[in-house]
Amino acid sequence: MIKAYAVNEAGGKLVPFEYDAGQLGQNEVEIDVKHCGICHSDLSMIDNEWGISQYPLVAGHEVIGTIKQMGENVKGFHLGQIVGLGWHSGYCGECAMCHSADENLCRNAQPTIISHYGGFAEQVRADAKSVVALPENIELKSAGPLFCGGVTVFNPLVQFDIKPTDKVAVIGIGGLGHIALQFLNAWGCEVTAFTSSPEKAKEALEMGAHHTINSRDVAEIQQAASKFDLIISTVNVKLDWNSYISTLKPKGRLHFVGATLEPLDIAATGLIGSQRSISGSLVGSPSTIAKMLDFAQQHNIKPIIEEYSFDNINEAIERVRSGKAKYRVVLSR
Amino acid sequence: MIKAYAVNEAGGKLVPFEYDAGQLGQNEVEIDVKHCGICHSDLSMIDNEWGISQYPLVAGHEVIGTIKQMGENVKGFHLGQIVGLGWHSGYCGECAMCHSADENLCRNAQPTIISHYGGFAEQVRADAKSVVALPENIELKSAGPLFCGGVTVFNPLVQFDIKPTDKVAVIGIGGLGHIALQFLNAWGCEVTAFTSSPEKAKEALEMGAHHTINSRDVAEIQQAASKFDLIISTVNVKLDWNSYISTLKPKGRLHFVGATLEPLDIAATGLIGSQRSISGSLVGSPSTIAKMLDFAQQHNIKPIIEEYSFDNINEAIERVRSGKAKYRVVLSR
Repeated sequence: MIKAYAVNEAGGKLVPFEYDAGQLGQNEVEIDVKHCGICHSDLSMIDNEWGISQYPLVAGHEVIGTIKQMGENVKGFHLGQIVGLGWHSGYCGECAMCHSADENLCRNAQPTIISHYGGFAEQVRADAKSVVALPENIELKSAGPLFCGGVTVFNPLVQFDIKPTDKVAVIGIGGLGHIALQFLNAWGCEVTAFTSSPEKAKEALEMGAHHTINSRDVAEIQQAASKFDLIISTVNVKLDWNSYISTLKPKGRLHFVGATLEPLDIAATGLIGSQRSISGSLVGSPSTIAKMLDFAQQHNIKPIIEEYSFDNINEAIERVRSGKAKYRVVLSR
Repeated sequence: MIKAYAVNEAGGKLVPFEYDAGQLGQNEVEIDVKHCGICHSDLSMIDNEWGISQYPLVAGHEVIGTIKQMGENVKGFHLGQIVGLGWHSGYCGECAMCHSADENLCRNAQPTIISHYGGFAEQVRADAKSVVALPENIELKSAGPLFCGGVTVFNPLVQFDIKPTDKVAVIGIGGLGHIALQFLNAWGCEVTAFTSSPEKAKEALEMGAHHTINSRDVAEIQQAASKFDLIISTVNVKLDWNSYISTLKPKGRLHFVGATLEPLDIAATGLIGSQRSISGSLVGSPSTIAKMLDFAQQHNIKPIIEEYSFDNINEAIERVRSGKAKYRVVLSR
C-alpha cells in the first residue's frame, strides 16, 4: 500500500489516502518521494478547473526522490539513485514523436496526475523512460520545480535554437518567469523582464534580468520596438499581444508557455511584414530535462522556494493558491 | 524622359505619362521593360486601398527586361543582360537585416511602386542590389510573377528549412497558390491543396498537389488532423484558423503570405499542447530570388499566365480585378 494525500471532491482538502499500486510493471520504477513541488496545475486538477479530474485525486508532479523498486526491464538506473519525475510519467514509445525524442509531444503520453496517482505521497510510480537522474551537486530541495516549471521555460531555448547573442524578454515574473530569467542570463542573452510590479522589477534584476519594462506603460513598450529575438510569455491573462509583437525584431518569436484562454487576436500584418512567429509549448522531453539539469547545476540555477513539510500540505496548497509564494512551494520530508 | 502608364487618382484608368528620371544614380541600373506582371497589390496601390498612394502613380513590380544603363559603381551586370525586378527596388544597405542578407526585411527598403515609379513603363530604375539576373533557358514571359508572387511562396521553404519529407498544404489556389503547388511538388513534399472550388481542385492536382481537401467541408478538414508540417495560407479572407491549426502535426507551422485583415483569433492552447507556430512573411531577399529562379528553371516551374500587350493595359488590369484570370496576368511588348 502506498500512503498518499488525496482530494475526494473538486476544491476539497487533501486527506490521508492509501492505495494498492499492485505489482510493479516491468518497465516501471517506484520512487520514494523526498520532495515534491506544488505547481499551479496541481490546483487546477484539485479544483477540476479543466473538467477532467477523477477523485480520489493524488496531485504532485515535481518529484525528487530515490529509486525504491525497479521493474525487471529497467536499465540505466540503480536502487537508491536520486531521480526526478515531472508532468509525464509515461509515453507510448511507439509514435513518431517518441521515436524523435519528442516524447513530451506524444499524443498518448501519460500525465503524472491525470488518471494516475502523483507525487503527494510516500511513493510514486512511473515508466522509467519518464524518470530522469539528477546530476551530482545539484540542490535537491529546489530541484523539483525544474521538472515542470523549469523545463517549460528551458525547452523553447533548445527547440528554437536560441543564441547567446539573442535579446530575450520574459512576460510575467512568477513561478515560471523567475526561472526563465536565470536560464536566459546563464545562456548569455541580454535579458529583459516585463512586469507591472515595481517590487518584482527589482527582484527580476537580481535574478538575471539586465533591463525591466513596466508592462502597464504603453510608452515604455513602444520604446522597445523591434528589440527582441524572443519573448517568452508565462502569464495566463490576456494582454495586448500586438503591442508585444511590435517589440520583436524581424524574424522574432512570441512564445507562449502560459495558457491564456482568450483568443490571441493577432494581426496577421504584424507577422507578415517582419516575418515574425508566435508559438507555444508544454514542458519538454526527458533528454531536454537532463540537459536542463546539467545546465542548472553548472550555473547554480535554482528555483526560489518556500519549503513546507508534507504534514502541512493543506497550508502549502493555500500558499500557492494565494499567489503570494516566492516563487515555488515545495513539500519535503 | 521615360514613357509610362500612370493613374492620376484613386481607381482611375491608366493613361500615358512621361517623367524625367534625371541622371542615373551611381548604384542604379535602368531596365528596358519587356514584360511586367500585374499583381493584386498593384490594384491596391492604384485604388489607394492602403491610404499611402501618391499620384501620378506608376504601378508594376514584376519586371523582366534588359539592362539599358548602369551607374558607375554597379558591378556584376552588363549592358543588355536579362534581369528582373520585384517588390523592392532598393535597400538601405546599412542595417542588420541588409548585413544578414535579409534585405527584404530592411525597414527602409524602397518598394518599387511606393514613392517610386514602377514597371508599367518602357524603362524602370532600381538600385542594382535589388535586381536579379535571370538564369539561361528560363521562359521570360512567365518569369515576372516569380519576382513577387513566386518568391512570396518560395521564401518560407527556405526560411523554415522545409524538408522533402515534409507534408505541406496550401490554402487558396490562385495567383500565389498555383505557384506554391509547383514549388512544393518539385521540393519533394507530399502536397495538399485546400480549395472550395471543384474546378480548382482538379487543376491543383495537375499543378502538383497529391491530394485536395474541400475547405468548406468541416468533416474533411477534421480527417486531416495532425497531418501537416507546414500550411501556407495565400488567401486574404478570414477562415476558421483554429481548425486549420488542428491539421498541423506537433511542431507544425501555419504560415501567412496572404494578408487577412481581421485578427487571427488563435487559441493559445492549440499552439501550446503541440508546440505549433504561426507566422507570416513578405517576398524574399535577392539571394532567395536567385535561388528560386535556378530552382524554377531546373524544374520547369512556370506561373500560368494570360498575356496582354502594354497597349491593352487597362483591359489587363480589369482582368486581374475580375478575379477570373488564370492565374497571373502579364503585360508584354
